[in-house]
Amino acid sequence: MAKNITARDTDYSKWYNDIVQQADLAENSGVRGCMVIKPYGYAIWEKMQAELDRMFKATGHVNAYFPLFIPKSYFSKEASHVDGFAKECAIVTHYRLKNAEDGSGVIVDPTAKLEEELIVRPTSETIIWDTYRKWIQSYRDLPLLINQWANVVRWEMRTRLFLRTTEFLWQEGHTAHATKKEAVEETEQMIGIYAKFAEGFMAMPVVIGTKTESERFAGALETYCIEALMQDGKALQAGTSHFLGQNFAKAFDVKFATKEGKQEYVWASSWGVSTRLMGALVMTHSDDYGLVLPPKLAPFQVVIVPIYKGEEQLEAVSKVANKVKKALEEKGISVKFDNRDTHKPGWKFAEYELKGVPLRLALGARDLENGTIEIARRDTLEKEAYQITDIENKVEHLLSQIQDNLYKKALTFREEKTYKADSKKEFVKLINEGGFVYAHWDGTSETEELIKQETKATIRCIPLEKTGESGECVFSGKPSNQRVLFAKSY
Amino acid sequence: MAKNITARDTDYSKWYNDIVQQADLAENSGVRGCMVIKPYGYAIWEKMQAELDRMFKATGHVNAYFPLFIPKSYFSKEASHVDGFAKECAIVTHYRLKNAEDGSGVIVDPTAKLEEELIVRPTSETIIWDTYRKWIQSYRDLPLLINQWANVVRWEMRTRLFLRTTEFLWQEGHTAHATKKEAVEETEQMIGIYAKFAEGFMAMPVVIGTKTESERFAGALETYCIEALMQDGKALQAGTSHFLGQNFAKAFDVKFATKEGKQEYVWASSWGVSTRLMGALVMTHSDDYGLVLPPKLAPFQVVIVPIYKGEEQLEAVSKVANKVKKALEEKGISVKFDNRDTHKPGWKFAEYELKGVPLRLALGARDLENGTIEIARRDTLEKEAYQITDIENKVEHLLSQIQDNLYKKALTFREEKTYKADSKKEFVKLINEGGFVYAHWDGTSETEELIKQETKATIRCIPLEKTGESGECVFSGKPSNQRVLFAKSY
Repeated sequence: MAKNITARDTDYSKWYNDIVQQADLAENSGVRGCMVIKPYGYAIWEKMQAELDRMFKATGHVNAYFPLFIPKSYFSKEASHVDGFAKECAIVTHYRLKNAEDGSGVIVDPTAKLEEELIVRPTSETIIWDTYRKWIQSYRDLPLLINQWANVVRWEMRTRLFLRTTEFLWQEGHTAHATKKEAVEETEQMIGIYAKFAEGFMAMPVVIGTKTESERFAGALETYCIEALMQDGKALQAGTSHFLGQNFAKAFDVKFATKEGKQEYVWASSWGVSTRLMGALVMTHSDDYGLVLPPKLAPFQVVIVPIYKGEEQLEAVSKVANKVKKALEEKGISVKFDNRDTHKPGWKFAEYELKGVPLRLALGARDLENGTIEIARRDTLEKEAYQITDIENKVEHLLSQIQDNLYKKALTFREEKTYKADSKKEFVKLINEGGFVYAHWDGTSETEELIKQETKATIRCIPLEKTGESGECVFSGKPSNQRVLFAKSY
Repeated sequence: MAKNITARDTDYSKWYNDIVQQADLAENSGVRGCMVIKPYGYAIWEKMQAELDRMFKATGHVNAYFPLFIPKSYFSKEASHVDGFAKECAIVTHYRLKNAEDGSGVIVDPTAKLEEELIVRPTSETIIWDTYRKWIQSYRDLPLLINQWANVVRWEMRTRLFLRTTEFLWQEGHTAHATKKEAVEETEQMIGIYAKFAEGFMAMPVVIGTKTESERFAGALETYCIEALMQDGKALQAGTSHFLGQNFAKAFDVKFATKEGKQEYVWASSWGVSTRLMGALVMTHSDDYGLVLPPKLAPFQVVIVPIYKGEEQLEAVSKVANKVKKALEEKGISVKFDNRDTHKPGWKFAEYELKGVPLRLALGARDLENGTIEIARRDTLEKEAYQITDIENKVEHLLSQIQDNLYKKALTFREEKTYKADSKKEFVKLINEGGFVYAHWDGTSETEELIKQETKATIRCIPLEKTGESGECVFSGKPSNQRVLFAKSY
């Protein structure tokens, strides 16, 4: 077991915090609820960003940037949005400080009070749709497919690094369409892209579905989501895509002239993922030894550690190590050669295990004699000596294996923890054990609320994949035409 | 002259605003002083970011992310910093809204008042150095070379798109070193990188120098800057790099153990460029027809416009156009093929001229017969028909020519507008005509302030390039051992 890391079985929540902090991903800052994303953690986020951005652009989206501040009155324009978002938020009321007369420091200048308070954006629908009114006149201006990478603030009372922080980083897509059909297709396309990213890059299997009415985004007609199962049996919502209908177009009076010259309201979608994905990534693959990273998102996929005594051996080992590094880099593999003489090999081994580097190559004087190199896999913790010839192909193959293996392992875990419940008793028992529970529900908010109060489980989603199976609600006994996915959640 | 664009000679300031808005770079938002960066403008900013980020990483820097909010008390810790930055800023005082009892909307909940107000970061030295205290214990932790891409807010009274906005995007580097020498070298390296970026990518010549004491960054011992000359004869500060000495280390108590085991304060630098560069780019190259972009920063370098009558011709033209597009893309050239049938070729020509696309290729039915293609250069506005064979090499060559030509043109302009003044009378006359004026100055803040009051000119920098020429201050007649650079400025 790694030093400083609490075992999952001992305290899962502490294990998570230990990994995030010990692996240098993030830490709490001096500002309540706001985190500092450390360089190693930020490098993973950059990889996520780059890949998502590429996927967004490949589907015709462009980036733009909208203001951090939103006038308070904007929130009141969309009736259901205001209740969902304009409550726990950071409010700017003044624009100047001055020196205190008693010399004790700086104080807020009471004469510099804003006429209208500004809200630090919790999400940008309102300011963006206020802008779209100017950008959209005719069907020629549609569709408008815009994404923004930004920071947002929601005044959370209980925060956890990455999973729930007052400020977080995210992307928010905001699209405008001429028809309902197109807007729905966009909403579905984007949840599909999130699922593809989660499974293909994060190696994290997800269930795609829609939220129940009570769990929908404030202002949406339909919210699609991807839900992943964490190792403690809780669900984590990893991304959402909302079909907004004409709600924001009506609230901000955004109409367009159709080809036939009629004036119609625009149809909308919005969709986002955030630094919460970092938390999901940590919790999906890591173990009691530290972080485990899928090769596609690792800041460096391979680390080479030289084992040597004295300058002369280091020089000989470095020569070969640099050759290996170059051969790997030519294959597009990212490599760090850690030749620091301030730390011993054992210390380095522990460090890179903790940081989840997918492959560790160790190269010593004896390896040079034998023409070998030792490779340790982070996912299985297996070590093996390989012939150094053709090492770049072996490494490439191993990286691809690790990526697949992590996905399969997570999928197997999820499958083992996925149940069907056909009675209330069974349902309560399974929910308390943790995992995904598929059960029939009568479709009412009342039963949904009752289940939540009695078991702390929520409906994570109504799966898109339909089985056509009907049955009876496990709580009310009323008819149901589909099982929905229940779990306790983050 | 382009529709909607005021000529530079008529009203330079209006010309600038017209270009920024008509070329779809940015616009004012509903929030005072905050801009919306539109997709075309943001695509240029993304190109700037990508290149700068590459340069930062190539010199060993990594990215991280620090909180948006800074507790008010942090600003008081570095004495000179507080006066420079903690004055005109956005202040968060509350964290909750509630429904007004009279149903009129939402109001600030007076019970949700923060104990300590939070400042929306105007720059992040304080919060970062508060964090560095935890990260730095030993010489092994140094140097710490971190950059952040972020939004910042300074409550400006008079704002102009890109040049001075309440919220803007930037990067801020914050480095920590074991020795003064290393920190100074880092500060100089980074201003060098900014100069290389400005000249090599923006095609904008700059003068590198240091600021006088009165123009220094609040908290710095030395501020390096790059200064560019705009077409109206005013200077624009395009980037700064600060040597902070041990000021922030002392304010936030950041010490490290040397190899010898002694405790010493850390040495620091910080450096930044912002979306202000977008304003500089516009003003350096654009003309009365619209935006002019250097190929290295153009969202697309080439646009192909088909000229056709009817479906059949379009099909034939498209076939060739797509072949050309593919050949260009294989050379790494970015191309847009605008085959929209909602707009006429003439409209498209005007549009891409306004948007500064470096090369416009027009392809019609007659070209197909002749095996030709028409190429129009945005920088010179020259048009010429080329044989379509080997067109990708011609385009590549032309793009490189345009990049060089824009730099040379800007350099020639600057040289023609650069003067030496040897008397007060001459100085005043030259400053009023606009341009860079090199003159002797006695080195005192008093004379600097007097010159500013009498002529509105400021010392843009003390150039790094030394001539060794001594003389007499043009205002006080006192001795001076170096000419400094004066200009009116943005």
